Amino acid sequence: MDLTLIKQLAIPSSSKIVLLVADGLGGLPREADGRSELEVASLPNLDTLAARSLCGLIDMVGPGIIPGSGPGHLALFGYDPFTYQIGRGVLEACGIDLDLRPGDVASRGNFCTLDEEGRITDRRAGRIATETCERLCRQLDQIRIEGVEVVVRPVKEHRFVVVFRGEGLSDALADSDPQATGERPLAVKGVGPGAERTAELVNQFVDQARTVLKEEKPANMILLRGFAVPPKLPALPELLRLRAAAITCYPMYRGLAKLVGMDALPFCADLDDELKTLSANYDQYDFFYVHFKGTDRAGEDGDFDAKVAALEELDRRIPDFLALHPDVFIVTGDHSTPAVLKGHSWHPVPLLLSSRWSRATGAGRFTERECAQGPLATMRAVELIPLAMANALRFKKFGA
Amino acid sequence: MDLTLIKQLAIPSSSKIVLLVADGLGGLPREADGRSELEVASLPNLDTLAARSLCGLIDMVGPGIIPGSGPGHLALFGYDPFTYQIGRGVLEACGIDLDLRPGDVASRGNFCTLDEEGRITDRRAGRIATETCERLCRQLDQIRIEGVEVVVRPVKEHRFVVVFRGEGLSDALADSDPQATGERPLAVKGVGPGAERTAELVNQFVDQARTVLKEEKPANMILLRGFAVPPKLPALPELLRLRAAAITCYPMYRGLAKLVGMDALPFCADLDDELKTLSANYDQYDFFYVHFKGTDRAGEDGDFDAKVAALEELDRRIPDFLALHPDVFIVTGDHSTPAVLKGHSWHPVPLLLSSRWSRATGAGRFTERECAQGPLATMRAVELIPLAMANALRFKKFGA
Repeated sequence: MDLTLIKQLAIPSSSKIVLLVADGLGGLPREADGRSELEVASLPNLDTLAARSLCGLIDMVGPGIIPGSGPGHLALFGYDPFTYQIGRGVLEACGIDLDLRPGDVASRGNFCTLDEEGRITDRRAGRIATETCERLCRQLDQIRIEGVEVVVRPVKEHRFVVVFRGEGLSDALADSDPQATGERPLAVKGVGPGAERTAELVNQFVDQARTVLKEEKPANMILLRGFAVPPKLPALPELLRLRAAAITCYPMYRGLAKLVGMDALPFCADLDDELKTLSANYDQYDFFYVHFKGTDRAGEDGDFDAKVAALEELDRRIPDFLALHPDVFIVTGDHSTPAVLKGHSWHPVPLLLSSRWSRATGAGRFTERECAQGPLATMRAVELIPLAMANALRFKKFGA
Repeated sequence: MDLTLIKQLAIPSSSKIVLLVADGLGGLPREADGRSELEVASLPNLDTLAARSLCGLIDMVGPGIIPGSGPGHLALFGYDPFTYQIGRGVLEACGIDLDLRPGDVASRGNFCTLDEEGRITDRRAGRIATETCERLCRQLDQIRIEGVEVVVRPVKEHRFVVVFRGEGLSDALADSDPQATGERPLAVKGVGPGAERTAELVNQFVDQARTVLKEEKPANMILLRGFAVPPKLPALPELLRLRAAAITCYPMYRGLAKLVGMDALPFCADLDDELKTLSANYDQYDFFYVHFKGTDRAGEDGDFDAKVAALEELDRRIPDFLALHPDVFIVTGDHSTPAVLKGHSWHPVPLLLSSRWSRATGAGRFTERECAQGPLATMRAVELIPLAMANALRFKKFGA
């Protein structure tokens, strides 16, 4: 679905759309009993809602493709994840309210630990405290390189962002992070036309950082990866002619939402806090993206039971969402994270769309298997926003 | 799905993928009892496997499009059959280990029978013995045309290949084969810019062939069709970062596999022989394409019972495939060939994908009807390879 088309179809309305994204929602059975996390969990509220909703599975990118959080969210927001690719550096920058300008080259940074021979012993420097990260970033931020402005900002623990700002910079740069311990950090190399000068500037910065951090323990060096310039994304609020807000606990998801032009509401501590923020801002916006991290975290840890618990936590809060009476309420994920795979997977994600106008056929339960039986079968994620807009009666007729 | 993307995602692994293609697999009910070939056949092994597999139907090209063997296979191998079109002549040339060079124009040839008035009485010259075909091809191969090198090689029975090799040749040529008896062979015509010279050279060859064959019975003339230059296909083993082998009994399928860069293992006599070849080469490759012809042959003959028998023959060998414990085992077809239609059809083809990670929901039986109920519903065939790669844990995440 082309976004230009969507823009042409959107009409103003007072209806409300709430898109609840349970990160890593979909799962897989444990061998033992053949039931997935969703099938094991007790989810009375989601099951009841599914019974009167339009249900299905969504493929975030395409069959077999394992979505990163960036492509997964872009697809959910209605943007083709092949057309619009977001580098890791840009994601991290957005996630800390570091507004990028066109042409900026952003990179994700890790503080790491080198041994006396200059080899990496810990790519995350023992996950140093965020306060230490902040102090070190202030020092690195003072580095001056001729020909380029350098901005260094902390994220969390060992993670930070560097932005290189200047004329004619390129993001066609290979990482300095070898992604392995026992190796030395790599010199950054240009891998595209005209990238040599940028590589040289970045390497000057890295050399100075090494000097600044020399006496630090354990964070005595930096690793850079995911050099990227911001993509040119048409703004979602303009395309859909609505006011859109993002409610999140973590920087990356906030960053993704800002990238498509949503307002990022203040960071939340947890799901309760997110619900309070939703409630407090309910009149000011038309479209709410609410991100729930617990499901993905447990899946990434390979902790099946913790993922079940996270799902049950989410389920307990469903009545609070429904109490706001959104015209369209969607529960889905940005990708699957089966505990048995300990990471993102390619499996389609359960979807539930509740609306007065959904032509619901209902699913017996909100599970992978039951949703697969729904009328949507396996839908492409980019088609969700058009469906939500239609159910919110925010689309006019296409053609005469 | 862009192949360049797939390349970027593929990672090395020791997992094994076996793609078993039952040619013309899908069928249609006989009016009498309302059951298709798959529904009538007794397929205990396939049914059991389907119950614990991911099942669905695949559309080779698109709804309503009847795939030739070329597009059907290309789609199965992950190549868009609209982007990559393979002429019949190229297929036939590949199938006999006749390696084409860029710019070669290959044509399929038939020996045929003309009556005294020069009209075709048999387009296949009574399906002459392959030995006769070989002898006649040796004669035709001695024809010399100024300005072009001509290579003539036998295929089987009445079929052969002619390759025209030289500078600036065009494959925009209309067939000399009128595809009807009672007609005269047509002069080859250029149908695109700059094709007139090539048409003239080809017609010179055809005229000389007529002279050479004048006294032969029943093969006293040739018909040419499917003039084509080889397409530029990126190699599957490089795109997927794996070693791929084709196990086939027939030239065309071998040719198709070679065209996408698979190693063609020695020709097999039958399915038993194919299984022996698979077993003997199992350690040397990661991806195996195994072609089974029986289903299509029976379908083309309009022999419903023979197709049922071919399916049952295939079913008996399924345990031998499973005994190798492939990480991903796929059973599907390159198109449907319903016996009641006596030819290829547009109907989606049943698909079964067995893997530890498939999120199988299972089908009651391996039939068109039951597969249609599976979570894949009707999938595009080009999406099968990404799904197989993911299930073999041979894909990394797309995007951060």
